[in-house]
Amino acid sequence: MRLPNYIEDLEAWKSEFTFSTEIKIRFSETDMFGHVNNVSPFIYFEEARTDYFNALSYTLDDTSPSIPIVADLQCDYHRELYFGNKLTVYVKVNQAGNSSIDIHYMGVNEKDEICLTGRGALVNIDPKTKKAVPLDENLKAKMLESKSS
Amino acid sequence: MRLPNYIEDLEAWKSEFTFSTEIKIRFSETDMFGHVNNVSPFIYFEEARTDYFNALSYTLDDTSPSIPIVADLQCDYHRELYFGNKLTVYVKVNQAGNSSIDIHYMGVNEKDEICLTGRGALVNIDPKTKKAVPLDENLKAKMLESKSS
Amino acid sequence: MRLPNYIEDLEAWKSEFTFSTEIKIRFSETDMFGHVNNVSPFIYFEEARTDYFNALSYTLDDTSPSIPIVADLQCDYHRELYFGNKLTVYVKVNQAGNSSIDIHYMGVNEKDEICLTGRGALVNIDPKTKKAVPLDENLKAKMLESKSS
Amino acid sequence: MRLPNYIEDLEAWKSEFTFSTEIKIRFSETDMFGHVNNVSPFIYFEEARTDYFNALSYTLDDTSPSIPIVADLQCDYHRELYFGNKLTVYVKVNQAGNSSIDIHYMGVNEKDEICLTGRGALVNIDPKTKKAVPLDENLKAKMLESKSS
Repeated sequence: MRLPNYIEDLEAWKSEFTFSTEIKIRFSETDMFGHVNNVSPFIYFEEARTDYFNALSYTLDDTSPSIPIVADLQCDYHRELYFGNKLTVYVKVNQAGNSSIDIHYMGVNEKDEICLTGRGALVNIDPKTKKAVPLDENLKAKMLESKSS
Repeated sequence: MRLPNYIEDLEAWKSEFTFSTEIKIRFSETDMFGHVNNVSPFIYFEEARTDYFNALSYTLDDTSPSIPIVADLQCDYHRELYFGNKLTVYVKVNQAGNSSIDIHYMGVNEKDEICLTGRGALVNIDPKTKKAVPLDENLKAKMLESKSS
Repeated sequence: MRLPNYIEDLEAWKSEFTFSTEIKIRFSETDMFGHVNNVSPFIYFEEARTDYFNALSYTLDDTSPSIPIVADLQCDYHRELYFGNKLTVYVKVNQAGNSSIDIHYMGVNEKDEICLTGRGALVNIDPKTKKAVPLDENLKAKMLESKSS
Repeated sequence: MRLPNYIEDLEAWKSEFTFSTEIKIRFSETDMFGHVNNVSPFIYFEEARTDYFNALSYTLDDTSPSIPIVADLQCDYHRELYFGNKLTVYVKVNQAGNSSIDIHYMGVNEKDEICLTGRGALVNIDPKTKKAVPLDENLKAKMLESKSS
């Protein structure tokens, strides 16, 4: 497996994930090449991320004083996914700054083979001013604690 | 062509459309059966509907005092669509009530063959109370005028 | 609740469903009106339908001698859905012909309130000739048996 | 604007694009935060890429002896996009190897402000063996020529 630059040591990187969620691949997410379309993993990363936030009681709400906005996102496709595959996506907060967090993702199939890896930063903003605002310290602590060391 | 129950006379029905818009079929909207997935035409109907509204200067905005909500929607798939097809979707307001409108759709390919027909009602609601509110009379008049007779 | 024309008696109609599946509403399936977009229920119907087929050991495969193609599809939106709602979609084969089946759907939220109802016909075709071909009799029998009477 | 690591000099990077395509933002691609969802730019990148391929007479077909598979993909969100924005996506092949190409993307709004930048590698594979196969030399030459220097 070709290692993306956000993974230094694969075994160490894998071992830090403590949260995962099952993703149901939908028929409409395949394409005419017969496999899961390249856009779909970003849907799965978002689903895994919101499940992870939910597990930390961090709810996304359009009336909140601050909301997390995606600043960047990337995915490496290590193995094709097909309709019928069982996909588990792992999520961890790799780093947390004042108002931003760097989230890492790993997607494995039913044979525990890595199909997807990825990462992306979220920035916490005030939806009215669009300015970055500090993340809640308790939430940040919970996120960093959930990364096993 | 099997005629859906919302079309009495096909030629008369077709002749009433005066608005149409070009839809770009996207690769990600195909599925592993090699054709456009059955969910995608509802994306196209929505795109055609918002283009039609835009042509009538009716803009969808989450700060408006009233917004149009889809009450029902249906599509008949008369001919498979493929990536690379040129799709034109026609839209007309078939009927307008006090707070609701019945919109009809027809999608044709580059050979002018009917691939999709459909319809669906929108209800104009107050987003705060979720109650139906009357449609603007000017807008309603413009919608009904745009249907050729 | 306004009754669509494919439901005669709501209680009788509801009581015939024996299969259901949990659907995870995804954040990307909401829209700027704050609720689940009108396109998304068709994704859910397809997911429920393929789960139902899977439960009957009827697998969708692009190498099969025949594949089920959607002939028409409709949805009635009885109640808005939101991110965070728990959605259960029920599926039944309402009628089965020689090569086509009429499938009915009902989506309820965590309070067991009906949010979505729908139906649509599938036609079994030969993917090479695009002609309708008879459905497997055993499969058809299993589908009709799964509808409780 | 924070510069991603795949852009050394922004003005030089921008000046190399010679191909662009208009993208229609769809209502269903917004989310409950009121803006375009973070998944949607990957749909736009794919649409821009297939338009670019089409302009080079490189057609994607599930019966081809070789098909381009996405190896990785990334997007930087520099400015929020909204329904109603006019989006133009620029595409260039930044580098071409034996069987893979590195494609860069830039999305600008109606004020010519950069909203999205991105990149991703495609690998040309034999769909039967899943092995990488060399790209057609003529196609590769045309791709590299289309990048202005």
